[in-house]
Amino acid sequence: MGRVTRRVPSTRVVVDEPGSPTVSSRPDTLAVEEPLEIRVDGDSLYVTMRTPGDDFDLAIGYLLTEGVIPGADTVHHAMHCLDEDESGSPTYNVVDITLAPGTAVDTSRSERSGWTSSACGVCGKTSIDAITTKSRYAVAHDPVRLSPEVVAGLPDALREQQKVFDRTGGLHAAGIFTADGEVLAVREDVGRHNAVDKVVGWAGREGLLPLSGHVLVVSGRASFELTQKAVMAGIPALASVSAPSSLAVDLAQEAGLTLVGFVRPPRLTVYSGGHRLRL
Amino acid sequence: MGRVTRRVPSTRVVVDEPGSPTVSSRPDTLAVEEPLEIRVDGDSLYVTMRTPGDDFDLAIGYLLTEGVIPGADTVHHAMHCLDEDESGSPTYNVVDITLAPGTAVDTSRSERSGWTSSACGVCGKTSIDAITTKSRYAVAHDPVRLSPEVVAGLPDALREQQKVFDRTGGLHAAGIFTADGEVLAVREDVGRHNAVDKVVGWAGREGLLPLSGHVLVVSGRASFELTQKAVMAGIPALASVSAPSSLAVDLAQEAGLTLVGFVRPPRLTVYSGGHRLRL
Repeated sequence: MGRVTRRVPSTRVVVDEPGSPTVSSRPDTLAVEEPLEIRVDGDSLYVTMRTPGDDFDLAIGYLLTEGVIPGADTVHHAMHCLDEDESGSPTYNVVDITLAPGTAVDTSRSERSGWTSSACGVCGKTSIDAITTKSRYAVAHDPVRLSPEVVAGLPDALREQQKVFDRTGGLHAAGIFTADGEVLAVREDVGRHNAVDKVVGWAGREGLLPLSGHVLVVSGRASFELTQKAVMAGIPALASVSAPSSLAVDLAQEAGLTLVGFVRPPRLTVYSGGHRLRL
Repeated sequence: MGRVTRRVPSTRVVVDEPGSPTVSSRPDTLAVEEPLEIRVDGDSLYVTMRTPGDDFDLAIGYLLTEGVIPGADTVHHAMHCLDEDESGSPTYNVVDITLAPGTAVDTSRSERSGWTSSACGVCGKTSIDAITTKSRYAVAHDPVRLSPEVVAGLPDALREQQKVFDRTGGLHAAGIFTADGEVLAVREDVGRHNAVDKVVGWAGREGLLPLSGHVLVVSGRASFELTQKAVMAGIPALASVSAPSSLAVDLAQEAGLTLVGFVRPPRLTVYSGGHRLRL
């Protein structure tokens, strides 16, 4: 956990009375943010700003949820490159994933966020099809049923596992839970998509994909991107503490994912796949 | 504002008593999320998931804060491409920016997030230099002085301008304020970096760059990325409602930017450039 947080000097100001603020200096604990470069067989694929830790899971989870590789079993091994900073110390900020020979790699989605020399055509369509990575898993047919009481309790259960948030107040979290509310894995990161990739990558390494019958819980809002990552991991339900976006709801309905937002006990709002909740 | 929010059916559940949840159906208003493709002189550069509206400002702000173009005066015109969805209606999801002939375009930073065939080397260094886009503006020498009372009041002033958040609970916001706390511009988006690009792009079109003597206020946390966008726009101070990351503080200190976090009246915490606050 050494590099997950860092102490920095800070100045606390309280402006109770106009013109005479109270000022005190003290160290503050911040969440660490550093770049991670993900390479596949030596080729640089993606750079993300992330909180160090679980880097292999993050890299594998990214490759899985972006559809770059078809399954975690195609990963032969993962290593930190021996890159060094100016003082000659290793940075651990480059991960190289070696794939099984002959693995079909699809970088078409990753390419979309960078410069492409021809028109990409993604946005010329409103169809979700055009921007959705096809999942191997059909979450629509997952028969799991969820108790609304259990779903309502998931954000608190996630929060209890957020060790770094307690110290910094500045991290997103993602967790995988069973339908009974048992926690499988919780990860934190300055980037919410990274937190999801870390739990999915962990599940991939553990041979737990697809995560049928499970719920993905995220600490913030439910975007299109996070909803897509849930579908790619075969997770049939996504619960978020805050609001979903319009496109997250569209994708959830099309994929047959249960999407629950504003989970703030005793309330929650169901946007898609309500048939899975025992109401 | 038609496409900024959308009404969708939803089911509200209240689990006050175990086993007998209260269920009611009602329409809910969500923030719209759609892809925007940014093209430069017809070439596709970047795709971002954004809330529609102020698309030209978003595109121009992105090009400025990522260092793709040297200034807003290099933009000759901006247009929505005539792309259509399946029903033949325009999507307004592609913006093409035409630059003045001979404009030096630098896509090296945009390329970093996509597939690059050679090792990018960004993460082989811990040096901020390696991942920082050089700004035309030296915010370190900005002589502005800020009252802590004014800074403490900025998040509430930002919140007052968040028209869409009130209806959806699901949008980030960024605002530009004078040192006296007067608002220049506030924009909302499902992506916090988009909200910042929208206000910076607006300022660029209005000929207001560099934004010397101003404060950028963001509704969430202060990441490296947002801090860099402030520096690129020549803004000497960044105030965030929540925590900064370690790298945001490093960059602020190196660039001479005033960085204030956890702005929650009557409290705020100064991480960099405290000399600009009248304490």
